[in-house]
Amino acid sequence: MKIINIGLCGLGTVGYGVYTVLRRNADLISARAGSNISVTHIGTRSSHSCRETESVKISGNVFQVAEDPNVDIVVELIGGTAVAFDLIMTAIRNRKHIVTANKALIAERGQEIFFEAEKNQVVVAFEAAVAGGIPIIKALREGLVANDVNWMAGIINGTSNFILSEMASKKREFQDVLEEAKEKGYAEADPSFDIDGTDAAQKLAILASIAFSIPLQTKNIFKDGITHLQPRDITYASELGYAVKYLGIASQKPTGIELRVHPALIPRSCLLSGVDDVLNAILVNCDALGSSLFYGRGAGSEPTASSVIADLVDISRNITTTNEGGVRPLGIKLTDIKDKKILSIEQIETCYYLRFSMHDMPGVLSKATSIMAEVGISIEAIIQKEQPVGVDYVDVIVITNTIAELHLNKAIRKIEQLDTVQGDAMIIRLERLDQV
Amino acid sequence: MKIINIGLCGLGTVGYGVYTVLRRNADLISARAGSNISVTHIGTRSSHSCRETESVKISGNVFQVAEDPNVDIVVELIGGTAVAFDLIMTAIRNRKHIVTANKALIAERGQEIFFEAEKNQVVVAFEAAVAGGIPIIKALREGLVANDVNWMAGIINGTSNFILSEMASKKREFQDVLEEAKEKGYAEADPSFDIDGTDAAQKLAILASIAFSIPLQTKNIFKDGITHLQPRDITYASELGYAVKYLGIASQKPTGIELRVHPALIPRSCLLSGVDDVLNAILVNCDALGSSLFYGRGAGSEPTASSVIADLVDISRNITTTNEGGVRPLGIKLTDIKDKKILSIEQIETCYYLRFSMHDMPGVLSKATSIMAEVGISIEAIIQKEQPVGVDYVDVIVITNTIAELHLNKAIRKIEQLDTVQGDAMIIRLERLDQV
Repeated sequence: MKIINIGLCGLGTVGYGVYTVLRRNADLISARAGSNISVTHIGTRSSHSCRETESVKISGNVFQVAEDPNVDIVVELIGGTAVAFDLIMTAIRNRKHIVTANKALIAERGQEIFFEAEKNQVVVAFEAAVAGGIPIIKALREGLVANDVNWMAGIINGTSNFILSEMASKKREFQDVLEEAKEKGYAEADPSFDIDGTDAAQKLAILASIAFSIPLQTKNIFKDGITHLQPRDITYASELGYAVKYLGIASQKPTGIELRVHPALIPRSCLLSGVDDVLNAILVNCDALGSSLFYGRGAGSEPTASSVIADLVDISRNITTTNEGGVRPLGIKLTDIKDKKILSIEQIETCYYLRFSMHDMPGVLSKATSIMAEVGISIEAIIQKEQPVGVDYVDVIVITNTIAELHLNKAIRKIEQLDTVQGDAMIIRLERLDQV
Repeated sequence: MKIINIGLCGLGTVGYGVYTVLRRNADLISARAGSNISVTHIGTRSSHSCRETESVKISGNVFQVAEDPNVDIVVELIGGTAVAFDLIMTAIRNRKHIVTANKALIAERGQEIFFEAEKNQVVVAFEAAVAGGIPIIKALREGLVANDVNWMAGIINGTSNFILSEMASKKREFQDVLEEAKEKGYAEADPSFDIDGTDAAQKLAILASIAFSIPLQTKNIFKDGITHLQPRDITYASELGYAVKYLGIASQKPTGIELRVHPALIPRSCLLSGVDDVLNAILVNCDALGSSLFYGRGAGSEPTASSVIADLVDISRNITTTNEGGVRPLGIKLTDIKDKKILSIEQIETCYYLRFSMHDMPGVLSKATSIMAEVGISIEAIIQKEQPVGVDYVDVIVITNTIAELHLNKAIRKIEQLDTVQGDAMIIRLERLDQV
């Protein structure tokens, strides 16, 4: 049986997961791959004395792996965008195929990497870069290849989904749950990329590029974090039949493409609303298939290893052939990628959840609703709670119809200026997820 | 650009769907496939004067397509297992690659077909044979390739899922909903394959063969239909926190493999419980990835076409190379497939929902529960409703712990013989779907 030699760079959580699963399921994987996939060289800058790696050659300099003539495929799991980029480019120039889980690197510098790979006739695979163990890249590039994708909505950041799930089920405060997430190892010591949308935006950039054949880009993605969400908003949403989820949304509209990451209300009847804890899921709506959903673990040692190894097997199955007929990184030739217009957040149209703090006087609500009517907002649902004794202001919650964000903002600014309204409105977008 | 010539056999709902989507998304599909996929010969035994097929050559004899020297790939969508088998074997011997949506044929005669394909070095692809547009074959053979599959549970028959969804949401009787399903075209005029489990068993046979590397087989699959389910059982299940779904289950146990198709209670907290209407979903539990779920439309013209075309693109991407390194039909070499022991239904262990009709007298319930205790059944939950005036017998519902079906049956037979128990017990298996 043909032997495929793997150079594994990085022996952290994911790297050791790859090593462990490859060894545990060796027979099964080689029967399926038609070859023996064997880790022959490990590059790791840190000492991992507790990791059992038998007699595999270990180098402290990862570039030695990239240049090792015995290595067929280099697996990059060191993370970051500086050394990892140089490592991958070096490996490519040494005619190694690449497998990586590095979403930041693919989202920010993928095009340079794919160009170099094409030149050197090697494959760059990155299934593990988006949604961990869920084979969503494969689904988009291969399984749904017949379809024009209308839109995608994904829960693609496990940390923020864990926080929102806890806030919803236990009515806890954001900061409180965040601390727990750090203790449990779900969130990094610096969790800003998870809660400000940077992580989700990088994954969305990759999904959108494949789905819509547009360049990889993160700077045009609108991001809104989850730090400002309050438990009572999640409770009100629930009373109205909605869950609050942190979504990455990519949508093809006649006027351009929407790319946005923000908390959103979604109907309880939508399967995505049942995706809790650190789990990930991506809902894809296409012209031929309609809606489909892909759900699973979006992070962690072995779930991520599952995708890394799937890429290794894909490459091994084709390693004796040229890459000519293979699946391209972004699904089509790099030269066929077209730079389409990305809509600004003010240009998007969606529904909204609004919470105002209003003085409970006759006529106040009607003044606010008439301001909304002026810009074309109609009200789908409203909650006004009875005013507790001794409280001057009450929460008024409004669910709107579909309206351009530009018009919504105009109305909000006018309402916030009313004497009878206190502070800023809370605005959360609401996605019905059933439009074609 | 390379041209791939398709011979399309069958111009019914799915066949015309394939033709339509290939034409509508031609630019997009050819950019992704790297070749121009073009239907050049249609074989159809029926006249479809309303179908618009432009100037494509049409033959009334489908074998002319299989023998057409210009055809690269034959798409078999005529259904059935007689002519379809001969057609596919003829096409293979003429060195055509095959794409089919024919689950019955693959489940019953797949091995003969794959053997012949291997001899002739052509590909046989059948993504559309299981769960319509959901790329579950690709997920199992490629996306989850690193994993040892523990178990799978799937809603893989749309008709029966529609019937159960309607019975649950509207408390309607089985027969009543079945008639509606026929009117809506969800069920065939003869719906027996959908409601007795034949259709689901064929799909399960294919999934299990790929997941566990066992021969295709339907005769060893336990089947229980949905005709005996009553709305009140669905209501009681709901009161206890469960939904009733018609599942195909394949599970790898130390003693052998479980293959079974039957109605089952599943927890409301499981995503599968939210899969309603004609939708399909497969929950897969693996060693590295844990649980993942694949959801979408399991039937219909364009959803099925979506999978047929995905297969066409896969083959087109590799058509200039030999099939040597490609993905094999059942994931591994035919000679590596091993005949493992399939457990009988009496050997399986699961939880149970039991409904007895009992005379409401002191001591009756305790007699029944002591019979259960004797064989090792413990009771997880129980409902006994107050007896309406003038009714001698009341429904008693019991949820059991995990127990071998053999032992359960013994207890049930004893309880049914009690003077104070009327008629047969209603037994529905209950799957917690969270075990590893």
